[in-house]
Amino acid sequence: MKFDKELLVLETRQWYAIVHPDDQLYLGRLVVVLNYPCGRLSRMHESEYLSFRQVVYMLESALSAAFGATMFNWCCLMNNAYQEENPQPHVHWHFRPRYRNPVEFEGQVFTDPNFGHHYLNGPNDKRAVDRETLKKIAHRIRTVLQKQA
Amino acid sequence: MKFDKELLVLETRQWYAIVHPDDQLYLGRLVVVLNYPCGRLSRMHESEYLSFRQVVYMLESALSAAFGATMFNWCCLMNNAYQEENPQPHVHWHFRPRYRNPVEFEGQVFTDPNFGHHYLNGPNDKRAVDRETLKKIAHRIRTVLQKQA
Repeated sequence: MKFDKELLVLETRQWYAIVHPDDQLYLGRLVVVLNYPCGRLSRMHESEYLSFRQVVYMLESALSAAFGATMFNWCCLMNNAYQEENPQPHVHWHFRPRYRNPVEFEGQVFTDPNFGHHYLNGPNDKRAVDRETLKKIAHRIRTVLQKQA
Repeated sequence: MKFDKELLVLETRQWYAIVHPDDQLYLGRLVVVLNYPCGRLSRMHESEYLSFRQVVYMLESALSAAFGATMFNWCCLMNNAYQEENPQPHVHWHFRPRYRNPVEFEGQVFTDPNFGHHYLNGPNDKRAVDRETLKKIAHRIRTVLQKQA
């Protein structure tokens, strides 16, 4: 995941979070990345679990406030790294806000297509949005986070 | 998730883990449940994050030792609870060991069908195994955990 300053919503000493550049099927989908070389969840230190807790709290609160998200899916997978012969996995989380009701944002309607069920993740299930909208999503989340701070 | 003593592999003050009764497509798939009424990750206390860290460490180590798992997928979703009008979600994790190589266990071969990619979760992707095998999977994991303790 390329670190993309314009899509950055949060940066702490141990974590950063950016708007997922390729998929906003679930509005506000983020990638939350550990700022620290660590290849699996079981190797994270206590302080990283505790700072992750704070990040979870900040992001769930922010996405509720920004877009009215109903609940949240969190996944730590790291499968893709293992397509390489010498895998270099790096701990990161896929964060998907889920919505009982449609949300309008910047003239576009985002409807959770299968609320109450496992997120869709087939190759045809991605929703690409233009760069300007991605930046506005990031800006909205950053603004809410700053108000919460 | 019904608490099923025979499929239990781990029980701590704050967490328990059982073999997933309906799906062993990824051998050793478990459900890891918080022993505490809590509906979302952002409401978990510090001590629960720290005990979760220990559970992650114990289970990743145990599944590596028991079946040679290569890496692990962890997801906290809780979607199904939101199919109800008054959702009562309860924090739990879906833990899927992933395997670069096939494993033989109790005369059955378990091959990760798509290592290096997102776990399969369609309605036809489940692998049901008989009750005796489920109990043997649980027993093997428990045995390894006891050796590690």
